[in-house]
Amino acid sequence: MTQTLNVDLGDRSYPIFIGNGLFTTANLALYIRGNQVLIVSNDTVAPLYIDILKQALPDIQTDEVILPDGEQYKTLQQLEAIYDRLLEQRHNRTTTLIALGGGVVGDMTGYAAASYQRGVNFIQIPTTLLSQVDSSVGGKTGVNHPLGKNMIGAFHQPQAVLASTDVLSTLPDRELSAGLAEVIKYGLIYDADFLIWLEQNMAGLVARDNQLLTQAIYRSCEIKAEIVAQDEKEAGLRALLNLGHTFGHAIEASQGYGNWLHGEAVGAGMMMAADLSQRLGWLSQADVDRTRTLLLAANLPVDAPQGMTPEEFISLMSVDKKVIDGQLRLVLLKSLGQGIVTDQFAPELLQQTLVGFTS
Amino acid sequence: MTQTLNVDLGDRSYPIFIGNGLFTTANLALYIRGNQVLIVSNDTVAPLYIDILKQALPDIQTDEVILPDGEQYKTLQQLEAIYDRLLEQRHNRTTTLIALGGGVVGDMTGYAAASYQRGVNFIQIPTTLLSQVDSSVGGKTGVNHPLGKNMIGAFHQPQAVLASTDVLSTLPDRELSAGLAEVIKYGLIYDADFLIWLEQNMAGLVARDNQLLTQAIYRSCEIKAEIVAQDEKEAGLRALLNLGHTFGHAIEASQGYGNWLHGEAVGAGMMMAADLSQRLGWLSQADVDRTRTLLLAANLPVDAPQGMTPEEFISLMSVDKKVIDGQLRLVLLKSLGQGIVTDQFAPELLQQTLVGFTS
Repeated sequence: MTQTLNVDLGDRSYPIFIGNGLFTTANLALYIRGNQVLIVSNDTVAPLYIDILKQALPDIQTDEVILPDGEQYKTLQQLEAIYDRLLEQRHNRTTTLIALGGGVVGDMTGYAAASYQRGVNFIQIPTTLLSQVDSSVGGKTGVNHPLGKNMIGAFHQPQAVLASTDVLSTLPDRELSAGLAEVIKYGLIYDADFLIWLEQNMAGLVARDNQLLTQAIYRSCEIKAEIVAQDEKEAGLRALLNLGHTFGHAIEASQGYGNWLHGEAVGAGMMMAADLSQRLGWLSQADVDRTRTLLLAANLPVDAPQGMTPEEFISLMSVDKKVIDGQLRLVLLKSLGQGIVTDQFAPELLQQTLVGFTS
Repeated sequence: MTQTLNVDLGDRSYPIFIGNGLFTTANLALYIRGNQVLIVSNDTVAPLYIDILKQALPDIQTDEVILPDGEQYKTLQQLEAIYDRLLEQRHNRTTTLIALGGGVVGDMTGYAAASYQRGVNFIQIPTTLLSQVDSSVGGKTGVNHPLGKNMIGAFHQPQAVLASTDVLSTLPDRELSAGLAEVIKYGLIYDADFLIWLEQNMAGLVARDNQLLTQAIYRSCEIKAEIVAQDEKEAGLRALLNLGHTFGHAIEASQGYGNWLHGEAVGAGMMMAADLSQRLGWLSQADVDRTRTLLLAANLPVDAPQGMTPEEFISLMSVDKKVIDGQLRLVLLKSLGQGIVTDQFAPELLQQTLVGFTS
């Protein structure tokens, strides 16, 4: 059974379909307005799924770009390969880009669609749990810069998202866990009941119980869609979605993009946020322990990488987008299930957290 | 005296100031929200005006990027230099980019502002007649690709435009004429009375009579602002602004960007559009002659470059953004002062125009 969420953004609203076997002409044709399509995928996903996708496309000009797989290829240089193909194959303003892959493919394809001829349509087909629950929802697109993640990009909404659960069968274990980090995040920032549900069902999720995964994806997308619909441009509420991300981006930048998976870095980052929240008196020791237990059950890291220093964290965190006029802002937890964006914390407490996680 | 036009785009409305001596703190401070500014300019304009601009800025972090001057540098590579500086100097989301230069600087700075951290503020200070009447108004930003002009970009509105007429004193003659091509365009597509005014005053405009230039800039911006306010995303009316541009882009692509100035290519392109409009029975021979006389009075080319063939035109025009699903659409003239966007013309007539201008 296919479940459908509508992300309500006025004239840029779009549906997210969640379920098995979504690669059908019926699901795709409605969202392609011209007679040209460019599929963007990577060299891991394409061999598995691109033929199935192409069989489902209407009988129109279909081109493809296969990028190397990995966060380290989320660059302006790879983006240029997409522009090159679009122009070589003379794609016009009515073309539709289809992102077939994880978050990297989705972000790059979305940004190519946002910027090609100042904006064309695109369809997201996320093939990882992470991208199904996170990067395919909300319209954030972009690429990395050597000095910071996602520093170049745009807000650009897809015409539709197909989150087909059957493709998760080929996902490596580490990537499944990375996706679960974002699922846990929704519970931590927004929904204490969902957090309890996750504690009760994490073993089944790790074992890839299909029905449990479907429920987790649906509720995660629902929470994110709810937040995004209220706050498309990240002025306030939406910033909650960055729980663990400011710490996590510093970890990724320090280790080199692609060595720690995004979700793994966010997992450790959420643990650091929970620790700082405890130092502020908002979480109890029991809350912190519950968080750690849940992250460990999802096979996620709960410590910073060996060798990182507090100074390195501070340096890398200060170029993060969450800095406004020099003041670091973080997403922390008022309680389990209730996130808060704040710059009201003593620098010494942050320092204590950083020392605790790097020694 | 400073004249002010308000471009009405809801919550993205902005003022255009036109007049002498606009580089003042009063004009700038209101439109800078954070405590960081990056000035982007080129190596022709910066030596003349960047110090005056910096003296007018409030006492905040001010960085600069000086690009090489020329359309051939309107590339993704130069754009990266802007991102690099922003990140090296740790500019955050509240930074303000200031474009000090012509259309190339304006388009690139605007696009950098549109895409840096998914969108920051910017102020346009156009220093050529062309950019004052054209590229600083309407929110189009972007860079070129080797296979086509402005193929990568975004719609992004500035916080304010300062069109300071005193800076035109240092403008080379060819660039003045290129700007006048766009001024003439507004008369041709939209305002027969303005066209007559231009015929009566072209000698004075070419002689840089300051008061005449001020009037011409004001009316040009007014017409463009009127069109853009009605049709921000170029679905219909706005396409009229491309009179001469589809032919002109082919000329620029053929000759290599930067060898023909944009306005020169548009001048010849408008002549070709007038010719085709006559073949369709819309313009008289007298109308075509008036158009040619006015373009010549502005010292603009009225023929295609030597050596271009009809086949080259067709090939280069078909990658233009005005192609929808393979059908070439052109801006033509129903009469002098009334443009029309149409794909309703016999290919043979276009061929006759191309043969006439290339033999």
